[in-house]
Amino acid sequence: MPTHMRREIDEIPEAVFRLLSGSGDALAEAGAALRARAPTVLATIARGSSDHAAHFLKYAVELTLGIPVASLGPSLASVYGVTPRLGSGAALTISQSGRSPDIVAMMQAARDGGALTLCLANTLPSPLSRTSDHAIDICAGPEQSVAATKSFVCSLVAGLALLAEWGEDAELRAALHRLPEHLAAATRLDWPGLAEALEPARSLYVLGRGPTAAIAHEAALKFKETCGLHAEAYSTAEVLHGPVEIVGPGVPVLAFAVADAAESGIAATVDGLGQKGTDAFLTGPSSGSAARLPRIDTGHPLLDAAAAIVPFYAFVEAFARQRGRNPDAPQSLRKVTETR
Amino acid sequence: MPTHMRREIDEIPEAVFRLLSGSGDALAEAGAALRARAPTVLATIARGSSDHAAHFLKYAVELTLGIPVASLGPSLASVYGVTPRLGSGAALTISQSGRSPDIVAMMQAARDGGALTLCLANTLPSPLSRTSDHAIDICAGPEQSVAATKSFVCSLVAGLALLAEWGEDAELRAALHRLPEHLAAATRLDWPGLAEALEPARSLYVLGRGPTAAIAHEAALKFKETCGLHAEAYSTAEVLHGPVEIVGPGVPVLAFAVADAAESGIAATVDGLGQKGTDAFLTGPSSGSAARLPRIDTGHPLLDAAAAIVPFYAFVEAFARQRGRNPDAPQSLRKVTETR
Repeated sequence: MPTHMRREIDEIPEAVFRLLSGSGDALAEAGAALRARAPTVLATIARGSSDHAAHFLKYAVELTLGIPVASLGPSLASVYGVTPRLGSGAALTISQSGRSPDIVAMMQAARDGGALTLCLANTLPSPLSRTSDHAIDICAGPEQSVAATKSFVCSLVAGLALLAEWGEDAELRAALHRLPEHLAAATRLDWPGLAEALEPARSLYVLGRGPTAAIAHEAALKFKETCGLHAEAYSTAEVLHGPVEIVGPGVPVLAFAVADAAESGIAATVDGLGQKGTDAFLTGPSSGSAARLPRIDTGHPLLDAAAAIVPFYAFVEAFARQRGRNPDAPQSLRKVTETR
Repeated sequence: MPTHMRREIDEIPEAVFRLLSGSGDALAEAGAALRARAPTVLATIARGSSDHAAHFLKYAVELTLGIPVASLGPSLASVYGVTPRLGSGAALTISQSGRSPDIVAMMQAARDGGALTLCLANTLPSPLSRTSDHAIDICAGPEQSVAATKSFVCSLVAGLALLAEWGEDAELRAALHRLPEHLAAATRLDWPGLAEALEPARSLYVLGRGPTAAIAHEAALKFKETCGLHAEAYSTAEVLHGPVEIVGPGVPVLAFAVADAAESGIAATVDGLGQKGTDAFLTGPSSGSAARLPRIDTGHPLLDAAAAIVPFYAFVEAFARQRGRNPDAPQSLRKVTETR
């Protein structure tokens, strides 16, 4: 019997297809509302894997539209009672359950502060959707594994589809249309050699830059949640400002790169880390001392980055079981974490 | 002979006094310019410890003025060639050296995008200051230790002084005026028991919420740089969304809290983690299973949070030596990291 996590990874292509067809009208309306508002800032509100999706969208929005994206810590409203000034802005909340009290409080405060409010949620209606001018169903379906997989990919894709509508980006729209088939191929990729290198590790770094930095954050969280392994994410630039000090034998490095302007710099940094004697792995073309991990070419660099999480999910689910853990049932976690 | 790092920690009160007196006019002018611009968004540009100071200022600006703060990854300009739309915004760059190519490229792009540009730098003139409408000397003086200490505190205090001018905040101004004497007391604080608990640890979490979350990030970086210890920072809310899975015996927790609205929630979370069998430490009042670490009361919660890094610096410098390391000379790092 496959785990819930593995089964939900296999459902990713179908869930994304369902999202793109089922929420197409809501996405078009929300995109038109963003175009009409022309926000000077987009605020994002999220936690955990949903916050990694928001982090990815930050890069996507800044790279394609040049609009600055500010991640608002929910404590701003839920603990400190602040109403942010967002009269010329928009706020986008991402939440699987749509009901964590701090997330809902922050969204309400953003609305009170004048923001156009939008949410990407897997549960509609919900306390979150009731605070949103535009609520988009990510259509992931019920998620039984504690570790989010299909809801993360659906959140990411919903955000990119919203961006395509907002910017009337024909290239991104067309690439999204072809995405489900590429995701199906991504679920079948195998990442050889990585498990052997990670088995003796107590710590590792997961690296990326630009959109792949957000993917690295999601991967690092999954290593903690499902494998009890202390993985931490950094951009390949930031890691050189201090964190590199602990890299070496016993602290492997896994880097995500796709065929965009950041690729050669990521490869050079990872090669340099490999030369310090650490086991280094890189998605895409092999680079000097780093071992290559296959990835899927979707025809669009943002979607390449999004799709790179899928073979990682497949890897980490198997690796957790290899370590004698049940990826569906971490020891300390519940599915819905309600923080204040 | 004390290390450079210890000597520079002891210089913090004097450096902050020099900053507040020497850069007072520049701070007042920059604050007036921000008031005149009334930005809808503040973009920050920084790396490493300087980025932790920017992260702290994000909370301070959002909490006191309600203006959203967006941290721009320098790769946006240096790798991807994007000019952000900041025609109604301001950009604040923090850099000790003022010459990392990616930082300067991002600041130039922010200026090209219409931002009012400001920098906090320890080196004037510099390539960075030449891209800035307002360049503020943080007056830390030469810093010889690779691990930044006084330049971090001066960056933080310069940012808070800028905020006090921007918001014409008499309470914050008055508290800043008294800060050097409180910082002097902070350099003499001792944190008992922490070294014994950390000695056997391979990993630890450093926690905070709101402004203290930024302090936690700075502390975690210093553990890596000076002690080779894998410390990772989280907010006390975020840690419950997955990362808690690795907390337990052998993975201690150090939390920063000050007397603000977040304190009771931080204490409750840390107490809960202590009950999982981990060694838990908390600045401020002891809380159930967590051991207390003394902190300084400065009369202002933002300055309490800023001052909390000082006894930590003193602790980590001694702890590094206890582990047989030279905190002035990490094995992999140079003082000026130039990334592209």
